[in-house]
Amino acid sequence: MKNKDTIFVGIAGGTGSGKTTLARHLKDAFGADACLIAHDSYYLDQSEKTYEERCKQNYDHPNAFETELLCRHLDLLAEGKEIDVPIYDYTVHSRAKESEHVIPARVVLLEGILILSDERIRERLDLKIFVDTDADERILRRIRRDTEERARSLSSVIDQYLTTVKPMHEAFVEPNKKHADIIVPGGGDNPVALEMICSHIRKFL
Amino acid sequence: MKNKDTIFVGIAGGTGSGKTTLARHLKDAFGADACLIAHDSYYLDQSEKTYEERCKQNYDHPNAFETELLCRHLDLLAEGKEIDVPIYDYTVHSRAKESEHVIPARVVLLEGILILSDERIRERLDLKIFVDTDADERILRRIRRDTEERARSLSSVIDQYLTTVKPMHEAFVEPNKKHADIIVPGGGDNPVALEMICSHIRKFL
Repeated sequence: MKNKDTIFVGIAGGTGSGKTTLARHLKDAFGADACLIAHDSYYLDQSEKTYEERCKQNYDHPNAFETELLCRHLDLLAEGKEIDVPIYDYTVHSRAKESEHVIPARVVLLEGILILSDERIRERLDLKIFVDTDADERILRRIRRDTEERARSLSSVIDQYLTTVKPMHEAFVEPNKKHADIIVPGGGDNPVALEMICSHIRKFL
Repeated sequence: MKNKDTIFVGIAGGTGSGKTTLARHLKDAFGADACLIAHDSYYLDQSEKTYEERCKQNYDHPNAFETELLCRHLDLLAEGKEIDVPIYDYTVHSRAKESEHVIPARVVLLEGILILSDERIRERLDLKIFVDTDADERILRRIRRDTEERARSLSSVIDQYLTTVKPMHEAFVEPNKKHADIIVPGGGDNPVALEMICSHIRKFL
């Protein structure tokens, strides 16, 4: 992590693990020195598919992402250039016409369940974090979020979890612990780990 | 970890996980500012038992340690006082007459498989680290160490592992991940995690 202008930090972990919470704490800690990019923003544009075809998309599989575009954007940020991050519209299961303009920052935070699953992303990361939370706590957080904030039925959340989310987690998310530099237990509200990560990043600012 | 003269760092992990390697890297990084204490030094004195009784000692169980003495020593170090750490003599399965004189240091490193299993120890630690390494890699390291450095037969190492070490690991070591502030994957030679831990400790020196 020496002699670099931009530090890339990847924050992975299963659904409901608290990775987004940790990423937001880091964003808050570094303010204008940091930008936060969600891997989910890079879900493939599916505008050329029919709605029925789009609905079949498995969002928990590495192939659901346009990783080439993400890598190109990371390289642009490393060069100090601005980027336009796509916005994904879940209501139509495709990319929205709008995008989010992001200006380069010294600390680039990347968060997503599969952010450590692709070698092309990993090799661009200076610090690889995996947030590790028990599966029962994770599904409870997901149930709460999806039923309260996304107005989904409990049974649809459970069905999706058991048929897709859990098997994909075991196949593609959990193995990424091996690629992590550190594992943060107990979710996104771990003050000692947060302070440690901040100290580490701050050294390079 | 603020406004303290002494920082206590606990390094736990299974047999062969690389916790001692990590502890030694930290000792090297802080030199005279650090002292390193092995939990194993505090195995109970068994001098009043017969040799046959001593041989039955289960060294992988929390009850094998004199935790009161360890805690007293930690408190003395916190007060800036010198301590005499016991030396355990494995050839007679009891405490040796000699001890190791330890002078207080700003960074007190404590390493051992069960260093996070006792609440009295945990509450004295400012930073709790668990070194996480796959079980197959751990047993291979243990086999190599015990056969090459300790002249033990392969079959005795395997027998002890399956009858005691593995069940004790699952019952008493592995659950301590939950008490850790951070988990270090991939053994003691993880340069990013080492640098991160050093940055964190250095902030308080």
